[in-house]
Amino acid sequence: MGTKITGIHAIEEALKNASRGSTLYLLRGDRRNSSLEMKAISNGKTAVKKVSETELAKLAGTQDHRGAVLDLGVRSTQSQGGRIREMSVLDFCKSLEEGQGALVLALDEITDPHNLGAIFRSADQFSASLIIVPERRSAGANETVIRVSSGAAQYVTMATVTNLARELDVLKEYGFWVYGADMDGESSYGTQFSKRSVLVMGSEGSGMRSLVRAKCDHIVSIPMSGHIDSLNVSVAAGILMYEFRRSNPV
Amino acid sequence: MGTKITGIHAIEEALKNASRGSTLYLLRGDRRNSSLEMKAISNGKTAVKKVSETELAKLAGTQDHRGAVLDLGVRSTQSQGGRIREMSVLDFCKSLEEGQGALVLALDEITDPHNLGAIFRSADQFSASLIIVPERRSAGANETVIRVSSGAAQYVTMATVTNLARELDVLKEYGFWVYGADMDGESSYGTQFSKRSVLVMGSEGSGMRSLVRAKCDHIVSIPMSGHIDSLNVSVAAGILMYEFRRSNPV
Repeated sequence: MGTKITGIHAIEEALKNASRGSTLYLLRGDRRNSSLEMKAISNGKTAVKKVSETELAKLAGTQDHRGAVLDLGVRSTQSQGGRIREMSVLDFCKSLEEGQGALVLALDEITDPHNLGAIFRSADQFSASLIIVPERRSAGANETVIRVSSGAAQYVTMATVTNLARELDVLKEYGFWVYGADMDGESSYGTQFSKRSVLVMGSEGSGMRSLVRAKCDHIVSIPMSGHIDSLNVSVAAGILMYEFRRSNPV
Repeated sequence: MGTKITGIHAIEEALKNASRGSTLYLLRGDRRNSSLEMKAISNGKTAVKKVSETELAKLAGTQDHRGAVLDLGVRSTQSQGGRIREMSVLDFCKSLEEGQGALVLALDEITDPHNLGAIFRSADQFSASLIIVPERRSAGANETVIRVSSGAAQYVTMATVTNLARELDVLKEYGFWVYGADMDGESSYGTQFSKRSVLVMGSEGSGMRSLVRAKCDHIVSIPMSGHIDSLNVSVAAGILMYEFRRSNPV
């Protein structure tokens, strides 16, 4: 038994890259997911099993499974290097060609898997090359993240690091400029992002840690005028990636 | 017993406007939330009660309550016109002054309360004047929405409508231009939003319904290059509101 995926969109995506040993569990007698079944059969690697409501809920870990669970047949992502590609920051930097642009996202202590999932999805859309997640006190790349990302987490490369501030130094050596999202910085409307950019997002409660903030070349703020102190962190990250791509189209 | 709010930020915000009859429930012997207690005492309207872990979990409807639940003491929002302000689209239009700009958000069948909460929060930040939500098949303004919005839902005016397409006609009569978010439209980077704009967001699965899409003056697309078909809808809504405010600062 390996990592489980629920959510019709997420399963659909995952079936494209599913490996031997994966199993699609469907609710017996339920025809809603016949297109998923076809996809599992046609990829030639995923077994299909029909199970009872009780078995499915147990596999899904929730009643809200919409009749389908995909077992990837590999052990949990992070530690085993499974579904989400892992790479060290240094290896990533070395892999870049001379003059090649890249967008890197660094998430400092973002703990909500819904937010992390939405961020992975935006990272896929705006072609971020790497997402850096500190090892401690961050939401891991778990099933919720994969589900919320609608499967996009599979297409993003991640670096799990023990010391984010030190990794930012590595990126700087390779020509990256570091932009931290925080209040009282320059307006994001006017920011000209370098073609090698790192966007640092802090947690919603307490922002970037001071050691991380000290590494930023620029502090960028999204102009806002609300009663609550900030945007949802996944919305803020999406806006800044969008703004990066304005001056650096793919 | 009325609408319950959990989440420290959300409670903090709600305490500013809490009315007589509201009650702050705190975990007995827990000192984490003493600042919430001070705020409840100083607003002069909210009672404070210390309860057991079991009672608090029951009030919160979850184990994940972080030691505090606020009971607003009013019945559920939508039907009673409680915490989220409600207004008809026509009344809203009539309330605008000659030449006054406004941003309106129309959510066509958006059902996930996490997304709706994040959208309300962005609407507060980008000073959207009204959020239109169809009566059927949309996530209502429930406790999850208020919590996810970190309390921002209190500052946004909402119109619950039976026929979204018809209400778009009303807005057009008052000088609004209607921008629908969908694929294959004009790039959002180049869009010059009118100072009276409606942004229409469709559901993630199926997009805008065709009757609603037919009412749009423009279809706007966020340029993307990912493997999955779209951004999270709350991220997309945030980006388009951000883009509206670029040409129409508050």
